[in-house]
Amino acid sequence: MVETLKDVGEFGLIRRIRDLLNKEGAGQPADLTVGIGDDTAAFKPRPGYEILVTCDSVVQGRHYLPRFMGARDVGRRAMVINISDIGAMGGRPRYALISLGMKEETPVGDVEEMYRGFTEALNPFHAVVIGGNLTRSEEDVFIDITLIGEAKEGTVLRRSGARPGDIIFVTGYPGRAAAGLQLLLHSLAPVEHPLVTAYIKPLHRAIAGAAVAQSGCASAMIDTSDGFLGDLGHLCEESGVGAELFPERFPVSEDLRDAAALLKKDPRDFFLGASDDYELIITAAADRVSAIRSAVAASYDGPVSEVGRIMEQDHGICLVMQDGSRRTLIPEGWDHFI
Amino acid sequence: MVETLKDVGEFGLIRRIRDLLNKEGAGQPADLTVGIGDDTAAFKPRPGYEILVTCDSVVQGRHYLPRFMGARDVGRRAMVINISDIGAMGGRPRYALISLGMKEETPVGDVEEMYRGFTEALNPFHAVVIGGNLTRSEEDVFIDITLIGEAKEGTVLRRSGARPGDIIFVTGYPGRAAAGLQLLLHSLAPVEHPLVTAYIKPLHRAIAGAAVAQSGCASAMIDTSDGFLGDLGHLCEESGVGAELFPERFPVSEDLRDAAALLKKDPRDFFLGASDDYELIITAAADRVSAIRSAVAASYDGPVSEVGRIMEQDHGICLVMQDGSRRTLIPEGWDHFI
Repeated sequence: MVETLKDVGEFGLIRRIRDLLNKEGAGQPADLTVGIGDDTAAFKPRPGYEILVTCDSVVQGRHYLPRFMGARDVGRRAMVINISDIGAMGGRPRYALISLGMKEETPVGDVEEMYRGFTEALNPFHAVVIGGNLTRSEEDVFIDITLIGEAKEGTVLRRSGARPGDIIFVTGYPGRAAAGLQLLLHSLAPVEHPLVTAYIKPLHRAIAGAAVAQSGCASAMIDTSDGFLGDLGHLCEESGVGAELFPERFPVSEDLRDAAALLKKDPRDFFLGASDDYELIITAAADRVSAIRSAVAASYDGPVSEVGRIMEQDHGICLVMQDGSRRTLIPEGWDHFI
Repeated sequence: MVETLKDVGEFGLIRRIRDLLNKEGAGQPADLTVGIGDDTAAFKPRPGYEILVTCDSVVQGRHYLPRFMGARDVGRRAMVINISDIGAMGGRPRYALISLGMKEETPVGDVEEMYRGFTEALNPFHAVVIGGNLTRSEEDVFIDITLIGEAKEGTVLRRSGARPGDIIFVTGYPGRAAAGLQLLLHSLAPVEHPLVTAYIKPLHRAIAGAAVAQSGCASAMIDTSDGFLGDLGHLCEESGVGAELFPERFPVSEDLRDAAALLKKDPRDFFLGASDDYELIITAAADRVSAIRSAVAASYDGPVSEVGRIMEQDHGICLVMQDGSRRTLIPEGWDHFI
């Protein structure tokens, strides 16, 4: 018989998770003064560093589909989403707190696999789980992660620093995860398909993000968690600027081009639209192009594409077509209530 | 027509919440370098201070009953639970991150009221909301709060420091909230009844907790979020000790005594059992009694009762009756999966 959360109870589950983290997590860092097992965790901040904090929840059925994703993938992916946010500010993840809302019939093994996914994403940074919370839910299964990171004082990179004339860069091939999800939903590809993998096992660019921030050459940065256009929209709003984009420069991978043909869509719509890739949008003055490229290249060997430039706010965000005509875009992002 | 989350969308709701926090929250502290509106928040830690982090979720129907509690009460209470955890380690709350899982038909006004409850609990500490996440849930409504605090380096008080011979103190009258909930469920009292208020608008002892930690006189501390016996059990387990308790010394308020009679229960069962009061259990060496009392008295004028003493682990946790007989207790706490 499969052992469930009801069988072991909350405190039984906490013990199992502690054991797993002791065996499979990165060891307890010296600056962590109180780890799991108390009312709160405590750590000594490093002198000269700012503390970064982010939180993000995923709800089963809404942010991931359990029929396509094992518990370990779900855990890894939820952590990658948060690591990406820390990386997009130029930080390095250090400590995670995890709140789970689970049904009582959930197998204990599934929760353990989820934690293996968390540690798989955290271990490369020697980052550790320092606390959390377990609660029973009736219907919705949710994972809420708070991730704490650090960045050298004064290097934190915000959304709000883009200035007219700046170049707009993007890493990788945004849109691949959205295409992968469509292939899955229409049963057009097996789970091993590279686009499906992009959806199920997304990567983050946190190391590249930290390098860009350290270089001091970028004016603003954001990750593409709401899709390229949605996040460019956030960046423009917070910076008080507009943007023009050159569609012929949009990075479209060969597999995305093939999938778009199969799905009868324009691959550039995948590039612009909501997609669960965690690439970086970076803006920088035109004389910083090579510095940005080398900062990213130290940890990532994929493309860094110059897809547009920042304009005055009254331009809005528009596509400049090859014939010189313009089309205004309305960023919508990933609005969870619509 | 009532405006719902579906009407305003996620980003519309975020703007409304930002406006509310700007007007009604404590002002942005100087050491907060990035507040709401970016991928992550960032702050400069104060030199000589440790950072404390806790998180706790409440799920509607499981941790609170919307038919008895307005949105503002729900918000205040969820924040008090977290403030209590920071206080039980001797810290002062500084920054909160809030993840909400809400149904799309929820009125925007309810979410705003919930945020008023959060700020009402945070404002006395000049603590502020610095980030969070909003997501749509289908059935369960959840609030997950991560609260970050600070405490002078070396003053953080853990569960694990209790030693045989230490006195066990408890603040206030644990059990009142549980009795209040029973009165509500059996329609035996109106919502204005003081025990019902203890359930709906619980207080924390965070200021007293910080004073106890600063005094350096306590050996261990924990809040009674799992009920007195449940949390004494956690403290004993982490300290590797046992305890003996003297029932005739248990603090029982007059209103709890009356309610217990009405509910045909022993008031000491309310004292020991699961109850949503957030009192402090403090242990200290016998020569520190007056120091502990004065530390608490500076911010709290209720009772501080000496209810027992710490024993060697093999004693377990037992009640010592007036005739000298002993009854062993099994702490269960509040196990969310049973």
